[in-house]
Amino acid sequence: MTTQPAPVEDPTLEADVFARNCTSRPVLQNVASRWGTLALVALREGPYRFSALRRRVDGVSERMLSQTLQGLERDGLVHREVHETIPPRVEYTLTDLGAQVADHLEALIKVLETNMPAIRDAQAAYHRE
Amino acid sequence: MTTQPAPVEDPTLEADVFARNCTSRPVLQNVASRWGTLALVALREGPYRFSALRRRVDGVSERMLSQTLQGLERDGLVHREVHETIPPRVEYTLTDLGAQVADHLEALIKVLETNMPAIRDAQAAYHRE
Repeated sequence: MTTQPAPVEDPTLEADVFARNCTSRPVLQNVASRWGTLALVALREGPYRFSALRRRVDGVSERMLSQTLQGLERDGLVHREVHETIPPRVEYTLTDLGAQVADHLEALIKVLETNMPAIRDAQAAYHRE
Repeated sequence: MTTQPAPVEDPTLEADVFARNCTSRPVLQNVASRWGTLALVALREGPYRFSALRRRVDGVSERMLSQTLQGLERDGLVHREVHETIPPRVEYTLTDLGAQVADHLEALIKVLETNMPAIRDAQAAYHRE
């Protein structure tokens, strides 16, 4: 891989996802993406190999899961470990920061899942209007 | 608007975003979308009119914000109130459920924003490899 310079940042500026050019915005986007969210929450259950993670995240394509994991690894949320077995075994785990992020996503998902009856009522009322 | 039947659901099944056909998955997707997340977190600050919300969510187009708010209103997370003034004033607020969801998103964003130095270090190391 070629060496790329780190982006120049003004360290006196605080990150703000509401600012359109803030470097935190693409990180949030990858975390909150359809597959990013499910991959991070699945990895709270423990280390996963690629193919097992793909089965857990029902419906994701190989290409999308691979892209998602690359983004999460680049941002320091997921650790990719290659075990030198024959054939080599590749495992994905959460980093400490990834675990913090995944905990918040899990809490968010729980709120939605437990409130699905109310959400479905709201949807039915909306369509009746 | 035409009357549409509510989707038929088996009430004995619990919602599970990991199941590809679960009705909770599109709800999560709208909440966790680029503009859904920012709109919900902005609305924690109080009621917003459309144009003011659009300025707050820097970079969103009129069309995307409108679509996003419609989805959040349909799912019972955002309330849209039309005040009968001249001209009419339309205001958006969070519902109780929307406020719960927004609190989790805010916590998630805070983790990312405060960890941006570590995330940028991870990105630089990834590109050096």
